[in-house]
Amino acid sequence: MLKETMGKITNRQIQLAARPIGEPKKEDLILIEEEITSPAEGQLLLQNRFLSLDPYMRGRMNPSKSYAKAVEVGEVMTGGIVGEVLESRHPDFQPGEMVVGTGGWQEYSMLDGSQCRKVDPGSPSPSLALGVLGMPGVTAYTGLENIGKPQSGETLVVAAASGAVGAVVGQIAKIRGARAVGIAGSRDKCDYAKNELGFDECLNHRDPDLAGKLKEACPKGIDVYFENVGGAVFEAVQPLFNEFARIPVCGLISHYNDTQLPQGPNPTPRLMRDILVKRLTYRGFIVWDFASQEAEALQNLAAWIEEGRLLYREDFVDGLENAPEAFFGLLQGKNFGKLLVRLS
Amino acid sequence: MLKETMGKITNRQIQLAARPIGEPKKEDLILIEEEITSPAEGQLLLQNRFLSLDPYMRGRMNPSKSYAKAVEVGEVMTGGIVGEVLESRHPDFQPGEMVVGTGGWQEYSMLDGSQCRKVDPGSPSPSLALGVLGMPGVTAYTGLENIGKPQSGETLVVAAASGAVGAVVGQIAKIRGARAVGIAGSRDKCDYAKNELGFDECLNHRDPDLAGKLKEACPKGIDVYFENVGGAVFEAVQPLFNEFARIPVCGLISHYNDTQLPQGPNPTPRLMRDILVKRLTYRGFIVWDFASQEAEALQNLAAWIEEGRLLYREDFVDGLENAPEAFFGLLQGKNFGKLLVRLS
Repeated sequence: MLKETMGKITNRQIQLAARPIGEPKKEDLILIEEEITSPAEGQLLLQNRFLSLDPYMRGRMNPSKSYAKAVEVGEVMTGGIVGEVLESRHPDFQPGEMVVGTGGWQEYSMLDGSQCRKVDPGSPSPSLALGVLGMPGVTAYTGLENIGKPQSGETLVVAAASGAVGAVVGQIAKIRGARAVGIAGSRDKCDYAKNELGFDECLNHRDPDLAGKLKEACPKGIDVYFENVGGAVFEAVQPLFNEFARIPVCGLISHYNDTQLPQGPNPTPRLMRDILVKRLTYRGFIVWDFASQEAEALQNLAAWIEEGRLLYREDFVDGLENAPEAFFGLLQGKNFGKLLVRLS
Repeated sequence: MLKETMGKITNRQIQLAARPIGEPKKEDLILIEEEITSPAEGQLLLQNRFLSLDPYMRGRMNPSKSYAKAVEVGEVMTGGIVGEVLESRHPDFQPGEMVVGTGGWQEYSMLDGSQCRKVDPGSPSPSLALGVLGMPGVTAYTGLENIGKPQSGETLVVAAASGAVGAVVGQIAKIRGARAVGIAGSRDKCDYAKNELGFDECLNHRDPDLAGKLKEACPKGIDVYFENVGGAVFEAVQPLFNEFARIPVCGLISHYNDTQLPQGPNPTPRLMRDILVKRLTYRGFIVWDFASQEAEALQNLAAWIEEGRLLYREDFVDGLENAPEAFFGLLQGKNFGKLLVRLS
């Protein structure tokens, strides 16, 4: 039925129009329309319901090699989607099923079935497969299980504490018996982390005395710092590290728009001395470094949600055409919770 | 017998006279004489035969908290010694036995037997218990086994390559099947590392094109960088890290005399981005973090020596009074091999 009307479906997608220099601007992204083709053997045609917006996408707009291929100018922006199968040429998927995959910033995607995962039909909402039950949640889980390893009685600090990753990090720390101290960008976000998510403390990174407040909030020092941010937050955190502290390096959102290095002095010798003397571990990671733990992570995260021990908050924006502005806002910390574009 | 003449034995020791600012100078250390007392229950009186000089001692001269207590002004300088038991009030030790312990910069030491270890009588020389079969050797071994983990076909880089730790690091890397690239401070040292120790390549850190030479010497990038040095060597190494490279941070000798941070810009965002994007692991360590592996390390190191797969070089200076100058030279890279003071 669908096949017959296929030629009449128009896809809208957002492509990279130009590589941003510093802060990305409207003109760097362009909305184009194209007609949909038919899936080849093994492929699925999806109608996307939710598009995930995540900080890592800023890195993909740069030409420089990162852990993943850059988006080329004229290509659709990369991104995770939850979509409904319209047509399947893969034996594991049926029309009407909801799947998650890297479908990009567009209303329809054509993906290899082998690269899609079915959304758990028992999930409270399919959109969670892009948040707490998806890449951000698994990032928090695997970064803590493999690197941060918060122990009962230890202190964990995480910035972007109300964000998609940070909120899960702090709550897992609490589940593990650690003290969780968040850092976020507004009073509301801090109240939410503390009063709803159960963080022990949450500080506003705009506070001119962040370093002093953080010291008060961490009277026994810091054992785990889950790094999402960099910059001034890192500088406030670093003097408080205890011996054998672990620093999973997951993101550096404060630097993504940098066009040059900050002014000196060069603190590298102090940083390295700190690593040596306190026997710190800094380790960078990407969620797919721990791909084999994805099933375990999703199982635990889902169980914690069901038990009411893991809460989440989603921040929806409607319409693909509003994705660029929402993304620019994300880089400035304007979102409150996991940022998603809801597609009609 | 000895007890009766005890009152007549004079000990000479070197004490910290003043905390150095920057490069230590003669006046910061003072040689004093004192009479020897008798060992208390559980103690050993040792006549020291060898005193180990090591870079970490510079840190102990500073007031700031490091991983170990600072030496106070008026205290004997800390250091490992090999000594002969003159008198024992500990059941495990007999006069005439050679032991290793933290006896300090002096001709006689009084140590708790529980803090001493017997030198293997089968060792080619008791002095090795301060080098390849002691703290430096175990440092190299445990730093590689737990953090560096060089794999067959990988490339390891180590600076201070002819030194007590670096020489062992490079040779273990070869034993593990990795490519070993050294960096050292003179043509002679590089020739030694390459032609005698079997490093694949060794570069002079005074070469104005160190970065370029290192790139040539590491055509497949760097998987393990055993950090002994910091500064310009680190800057040359850093751009060559492969994904998932490991950086055991063991020492930073180029910075030990620093009185201020280098000029900017501040490259921290680049360093952190590198950790994130390449998923690097930086981890500081001290040999006693892996104390439970000491016996295993010594066993393997001794076996490799016996098999002729692990060579060593000792650099002897005679007489306690010459220890300060030798130590200052060590900080400038003037030693060639494991630096020891031979006491009469």
